[in-house]
Amino acid sequence: MIDSPYQVQSSGKIKLNKIAPDDTGPFKHKDDAAAQTDKNLAELKCLQERLYANGQHAILIVLQAMDAGGKDGAIEHVFGGVNPQGCTVTSFKVPTHLEAAHDFLWRGHLAAPPKGMIGIFNRSHYESVLVERVKDLTPKKVWSRRYELINYFEKILADEGTTILKFFLHISKKEQKERLQARLDDPQKHWKFNPADLVERKRWNKYQKAYEDALGLCSKPHAPWYIVPADHKWYRNWVISDLLVRTMKEMDLRFPPAPKGLDKIKID
Amino acid sequence: MIDSPYQVQSSGKIKLNKIAPDDTGPFKHKDDAAAQTDKNLAELKCLQERLYANGQHAILIVLQAMDAGGKDGAIEHVFGGVNPQGCTVTSFKVPTHLEAAHDFLWRGHLAAPPKGMIGIFNRSHYESVLVERVKDLTPKKVWSRRYELINYFEKILADEGTTILKFFLHISKKEQKERLQARLDDPQKHWKFNPADLVERKRWNKYQKAYEDALGLCSKPHAPWYIVPADHKWYRNWVISDLLVRTMKEMDLRFPPAPKGLDKIKID
Repeated sequence: MIDSPYQVQSSGKIKLNKIAPDDTGPFKHKDDAAAQTDKNLAELKCLQERLYANGQHAILIVLQAMDAGGKDGAIEHVFGGVNPQGCTVTSFKVPTHLEAAHDFLWRGHLAAPPKGMIGIFNRSHYESVLVERVKDLTPKKVWSRRYELINYFEKILADEGTTILKFFLHISKKEQKERLQARLDDPQKHWKFNPADLVERKRWNKYQKAYEDALGLCSKPHAPWYIVPADHKWYRNWVISDLLVRTMKEMDLRFPPAPKGLDKIKID
Repeated sequence: MIDSPYQVQSSGKIKLNKIAPDDTGPFKHKDDAAAQTDKNLAELKCLQERLYANGQHAILIVLQAMDAGGKDGAIEHVFGGVNPQGCTVTSFKVPTHLEAAHDFLWRGHLAAPPKGMIGIFNRSHYESVLVERVKDLTPKKVWSRRYELINYFEKILADEGTTILKFFLHISKKEQKERLQARLDDPQKHWKFNPADLVERKRWNKYQKAYEDALGLCSKPHAPWYIVPADHKWYRNWVISDLLVRTMKEMDLRFPPAPKGLDKIKID
């Protein structure tokens, strides 16, 4: 187990408004963290090659956040330098007809990373207890049973060789406003602005409550949730890269043994 | 159309032994190319963001080569800095039972990149007229009809919005020997050494012939093959990045128009 103040304890009750989204941990300034983050990203590159060569384990990264919470940015800045051959990213959007015709965990299972790979979920199977709950798309008696099913699903993945890390990127309502405003102000970011985000923003408190339940009910030692202070993008990137590198170091990822008789081979 | 001496002309007859695998084009030394390649990779990063934002086009990159020809290296070094959220890599291995139960183009179609994405095929649907032909896994009367079917398949993708670039990484038999030997000599590379590669190496001439047919019969203006001199990894990376960047620049990838009324929106 990795030691972190941001890890949600099993069966913990969460109060998000007691957790500072603008925390910067041991760092005072962006520049203090930059060298550490760069070091982590270089290590991540090496560890990912070993994960791929080793071929015995998969890693699943779950990213959840409010709109503009930084999921896309975290993917770009933490995983932008990783060999794309060893990394898949799956965005969970409004379910397609085919997806909606299956149980809510089906599409997540389909997208689960195979051994040797890092799989990133941009949003995830948790949407079923977040947006579906907040917008009353699913009756309470259905979504309230799903926390347990999610735990079963993640236990299956973990027991069969997938290391799971789940990151909730925690931003303040004020920071969200600034980021949405930036999308309005910068023509290069207009394409990211979705008027529907403003409707969701009005449901801020309901979402926070839904996140509190999901984080509290579904953080397990084999599939921990981390609440990442994410008002400062540079700190968010450091926290994620730090937790990931430390987790992968504990996995003891060795290059596989050489085929037998390698020393006797002569190439014509 | 992009102008390149390496593009295979439609219905061209190819003689691979007339094409120098150690060509370095305008560059004398690795260092001469490095700055150009870095510039291309930086441009690629920007163009990929536009492709993703624009969401109207896909790009399919097909990589084929003899064993140790540099497919993995090209992916790592040309696409290693691209946002993984906009890029998928599919490795075509021995077909699974499910894949083998379908027509030979089925798995390629499943893996085709959706709009906004770069899809990289590490090996591809061409394996059906390469390994299957060379090793007599498929009767001649079957594989000989497949060139036409491949052209139909690529025409479908191209007409419906996918820009296709196909790269044959052309190495000499001597260079292959050196790379396989390096895998034997370096314990960090042992995991890449596959004794079966030596069996395939004995079929070198048969493979070259099969490549000549595939390249000659399936290079079209909408889905060109490029024969990339690949003995020098740094030159290979420059050629691929140069062709890709020039192709993407011609695509006129604009950020999509802003939603209407953006200037009247106020965020509470």
